[in-house]
Amino acid sequence: MSAVAEDILQKAATLSADVCTPFPQSKKIYVTGSRPDIRVPMREVTQSATRTQDGFSPNPPLTIYDTSGPYTDPNVKIDLLQGLAPLRSPWIADRDDTTELKGPTSIFGRIRAADEKTRHLRFEHIRSPLRAKPGANVTQMHYARKGIITPEMEYIAIRENARLQELKDVYQKAGYMKRHAGQSFGASIPDEITPEFVRSEVARGRAVITANINHPELEPMIIGRNFLVKINANIGNSAVTSSIAEEVEKMVWSTRWGGDTVMDLSTGKNIHETREWIIRNSPVPIGTVPIYQALEKVNGKAEDLTWEIFRDTLIEQAEQGVDYFTIHAGVLLRYIPMTANRVTGIVSRGGSILAKWCLAHHKENFLYTHFEDICEIMKAYDVTFSLGDGLRPGSIADANDEAQFGELQTLGELTQIAWKHDVQVMIEGPGHVPMQLIKENMDKQLKDCDEAPFYTLGPLTTDIAPGYDHITSGIGAAMIGWFGTAMLCYVTPKEHLGLPDKDDVREGIITYKIAAHAADLAKGHPTAQVRDNALSKARFEFRWDDQFNLGLDPEKAKEFHDETLPQEGAKLAHFCSMCGPHFCSMKITQDVRDYAAKIGADEQAALAKGMAEKSEEFKKSGAEVYSKL
Amino acid sequence: MSAVAEDILQKAATLSADVCTPFPQSKKIYVTGSRPDIRVPMREVTQSATRTQDGFSPNPPLTIYDTSGPYTDPNVKIDLLQGLAPLRSPWIADRDDTTELKGPTSIFGRIRAADEKTRHLRFEHIRSPLRAKPGANVTQMHYARKGIITPEMEYIAIRENARLQELKDVYQKAGYMKRHAGQSFGASIPDEITPEFVRSEVARGRAVITANINHPELEPMIIGRNFLVKINANIGNSAVTSSIAEEVEKMVWSTRWGGDTVMDLSTGKNIHETREWIIRNSPVPIGTVPIYQALEKVNGKAEDLTWEIFRDTLIEQAEQGVDYFTIHAGVLLRYIPMTANRVTGIVSRGGSILAKWCLAHHKENFLYTHFEDICEIMKAYDVTFSLGDGLRPGSIADANDEAQFGELQTLGELTQIAWKHDVQVMIEGPGHVPMQLIKENMDKQLKDCDEAPFYTLGPLTTDIAPGYDHITSGIGAAMIGWFGTAMLCYVTPKEHLGLPDKDDVREGIITYKIAAHAADLAKGHPTAQVRDNALSKARFEFRWDDQFNLGLDPEKAKEFHDETLPQEGAKLAHFCSMCGPHFCSMKITQDVRDYAAKIGADEQAALAKGMAEKSEEFKKSGAEVYSKL
Repeated sequence: MSAVAEDILQKAATLSADVCTPFPQSKKIYVTGSRPDIRVPMREVTQSATRTQDGFSPNPPLTIYDTSGPYTDPNVKIDLLQGLAPLRSPWIADRDDTTELKGPTSIFGRIRAADEKTRHLRFEHIRSPLRAKPGANVTQMHYARKGIITPEMEYIAIRENARLQELKDVYQKAGYMKRHAGQSFGASIPDEITPEFVRSEVARGRAVITANINHPELEPMIIGRNFLVKINANIGNSAVTSSIAEEVEKMVWSTRWGGDTVMDLSTGKNIHETREWIIRNSPVPIGTVPIYQALEKVNGKAEDLTWEIFRDTLIEQAEQGVDYFTIHAGVLLRYIPMTANRVTGIVSRGGSILAKWCLAHHKENFLYTHFEDICEIMKAYDVTFSLGDGLRPGSIADANDEAQFGELQTLGELTQIAWKHDVQVMIEGPGHVPMQLIKENMDKQLKDCDEAPFYTLGPLTTDIAPGYDHITSGIGAAMIGWFGTAMLCYVTPKEHLGLPDKDDVREGIITYKIAAHAADLAKGHPTAQVRDNALSKARFEFRWDDQFNLGLDPEKAKEFHDETLPQEGAKLAHFCSMCGPHFCSMKITQDVRDYAAKIGADEQAALAKGMAEKSEEFKKSGAEVYSKL
Repeated sequence: MSAVAEDILQKAATLSADVCTPFPQSKKIYVTGSRPDIRVPMREVTQSATRTQDGFSPNPPLTIYDTSGPYTDPNVKIDLLQGLAPLRSPWIADRDDTTELKGPTSIFGRIRAADEKTRHLRFEHIRSPLRAKPGANVTQMHYARKGIITPEMEYIAIRENARLQELKDVYQKAGYMKRHAGQSFGASIPDEITPEFVRSEVARGRAVITANINHPELEPMIIGRNFLVKINANIGNSAVTSSIAEEVEKMVWSTRWGGDTVMDLSTGKNIHETREWIIRNSPVPIGTVPIYQALEKVNGKAEDLTWEIFRDTLIEQAEQGVDYFTIHAGVLLRYIPMTANRVTGIVSRGGSILAKWCLAHHKENFLYTHFEDICEIMKAYDVTFSLGDGLRPGSIADANDEAQFGELQTLGELTQIAWKHDVQVMIEGPGHVPMQLIKENMDKQLKDCDEAPFYTLGPLTTDIAPGYDHITSGIGAAMIGWFGTAMLCYVTPKEHLGLPDKDDVREGIITYKIAAHAADLAKGHPTAQVRDNALSKARFEFRWDDQFNLGLDPEKAKEFHDETLPQEGAKLAHFCSMCGPHFCSMKITQDVRDYAAKIGADEQAALAKGMAEKSEEFKKSGAEVYSKL
């Protein structure tokens, strides 16, 4: 019998019903790379045919970037107790630069491994952790700089292209290749992402592949402004709410709706065990804020934090497989007083912990003074830095102030140090910023941090809508994504008010998928507009189910439609409940279209003649626009 | 006994419970102008005091722009059967340029007034309509150009200022006057709105006061880019759903949440009667699309539309008190074939009706050929043009094409004609536009239409999120509002899928209030940031109820908070459920603040010394950040 707690067992049994159902008319496909174990998952959405006068004209299926992992593959048996398959293990092994450890090397990791009280919470199939061989550096940046294209890089190249090269002609024929010129503010996205391009961007530090060698289950992805804009979803229990099973479910739920990475921000008890469950079952990179756990270890007393406790926490988490760490190394002593006249002071939890430590010890932030020591750990497991913005503004009033921009400069200096170690870096950004001040954030970040990927929370463009901060921030996120931010950290409707439940996670993620996609469109990403075009064509042709299925949330779209027109027949009708059956604007266009094709749209003479002809013909035919199917 | 239908009577009895409750801690105040009957309503939100070491420090109440009309004034008895008080009647009478008619002069209006079958649906206290005396012009633009400051203009000046001048010192002391410089793209918003400024903007055509002489119940408001950005909510029944009572309730509901104007887009039966009920009870301007009703009169056959039927409809609606008409006079014959290669053709219902008429008759759009005749009607009642964008893009692919911009140029020509008649004009805009193409819309509109106010639907920044188009469009709305759009037409989550219910209306309005406010902040509107500052200060000080009450939706904020921390005591606690009780980021700032104040934030020497002192003091005091109340 399993020693695992009842709620986890129950969740493992029921998860499939909740989140493992494939999306309607979608199937999981895999594109194989240069070796058979590079199998890149994508979602293919089948469409129905268009009715024409002659019968039916088929519409091609659409290939969509897919973050949902094996959960939506009906051929994969999901077993949370077992964890996902370690698809990257052979690639890591092939590089022959890691050692398998005999178990966790962190003090805390060893204590917990032997702890009887938490045995019932423990994931049962913990692998022995890997670490770089002495003197080795296992970061993707290190390989990239040596000119090596890793399987991860090839995987990413295939993934980012979403089969566009292969499908170009099919899409062209279907009318999906129409595309506006983008405005990219210095980003330069190629028409086709090659493995070499991925390598060069990682080598340059302009993109990161967050992929710890101890998280072989993850499906590699990339964060950089010359790639698709990514989004992160935060989960995590607090002292107030939540359990392990709920958090694992939220993680799977997040990836289902499109979360590219997930941060586990747990602050409650048993966060070590919770994290193990999450990582073993996560197809996406997992980020954490290690200072949160370090603080738990000193019973919440920030002043009792030490480098040794923090270091042990980094090793503990790195050996579990955390892919990126938020490190608030830029909260310097001299910046803290600059927050004194702010309306909302320091609002980053990590920032305030470090500020308290600095004040208590009248010393410089130990994350800053030990930064190179941290780099040594990062490169032994390939953990990516997410340099935290501990002094981000928590209100419109505090946006773009000297504390915030002072810290940003320091993050730029730290970036150079990390890069010296071939350690990957992204930079966290605000926060609360009114629209006219957003671009300055991006411009300064690109300059100060030498184009290291920017990873922002929102920003929220006003403070006056608690309960709707997914929207106040979705506006800012779309804009800053357009300007060049590589990953957008979601905000849910519960922001400022409480912890998100499943519905909030979905709402937050869809909002941020919108922001990211709007940014991709605005930058002119070659794959982006295909989906808009296909969906709009389906809409125009009243292919209701296709319209739902091509959208970000097919279930909600269908549900909304069915509230007013529940009959199945309504989905074949050439009208919706907005205009009603008597006159539909889209239907008339077919007449216009036929007519223009006939006379040649740009000839005035033909136009006049054609108008007269058309008028007669139109009247003779009964002049009916709405025809019941 | 009343002849009115049962559902309306019931709604009249129950409306108060639904929408007449004042917001928590809010009271209705009135600011009186130069004559006692200029009483401008505002909402005053009372705040609780801040706890300090010495006891309590009070926080001033905040004055907020209020669209909710008498419904949230507990001193006003609401009686839907009676309608609202005609507050503008004395002002209109004083101008002595109108005649009271003996009843409706439209053919349709007379038929309906005498119709027995619809008697039970009829509003009982229909006033005799007014019309300009022969040769008179009763538009606000006409008065403005003659140098007359009307009571409406003075009312608006008072309303737009929201008592900022009076409260400046109080706000300053409370720290609410902090304000970022705006970026206004050529708008120039003065620090104080004077009646003369209102007059000059209306005279210039850069702003409109949509206020039909037959809608004396309305509380005057202004639409123009040198004023607060406004939002419109659409309501209206279709052949498929809805009844009179529901539509009246939606109108009141819209104004409660912040709708500045309401468009009645009804297309079903009895739209004449529905409209009367709505106008008589509406404190905000009502807009319509008269072609919808004209189409009903010809049984949905667009080709049977005539100028005479349309003209009669304009008069019918103008005499009921509609404040602005969407008129699709820019859908010219030569533009129609330009839509032939679009992905989604013509998506404006009005646009497609006219396109069908043009095709059927091979003649130029009769709204265009009769435009000056329409102006004659508009100026006899002061109905404002909302020149419709019948060829707006319905998909990302179709944005900014020649059909759309061709029509916009024509709308610019028509603006000049309307202005020649001193008739007020605003210009409708798209639609679906990716972010990088939004600004071009604004720039062209300002140029082609000589700064007549722009009134846009969204724009939606991607097509791929049916069910979330309030968000795809809220992004575009915030941006185009910042660039200079004067009024934003809301989009609800049901867009493309069905008709909005009450919840959708609320969601759509709050989203658009966010967009409008974000735009006001970005433009640097003098009154905007006060509310953000006050709310953020409340948030920082854990004044939970104040945070809820200062927000756009106090009820939802409180509901979300209470989901995780329902106890009343939690609203006095210095933490929320996001971080939990153990370590709250905001609380630490108080220590930082006290410390910085003590040492002087900018002196390095003091800093070093202070750090050491502070460290000792901090440890001695127990180093506790969280203190239970």
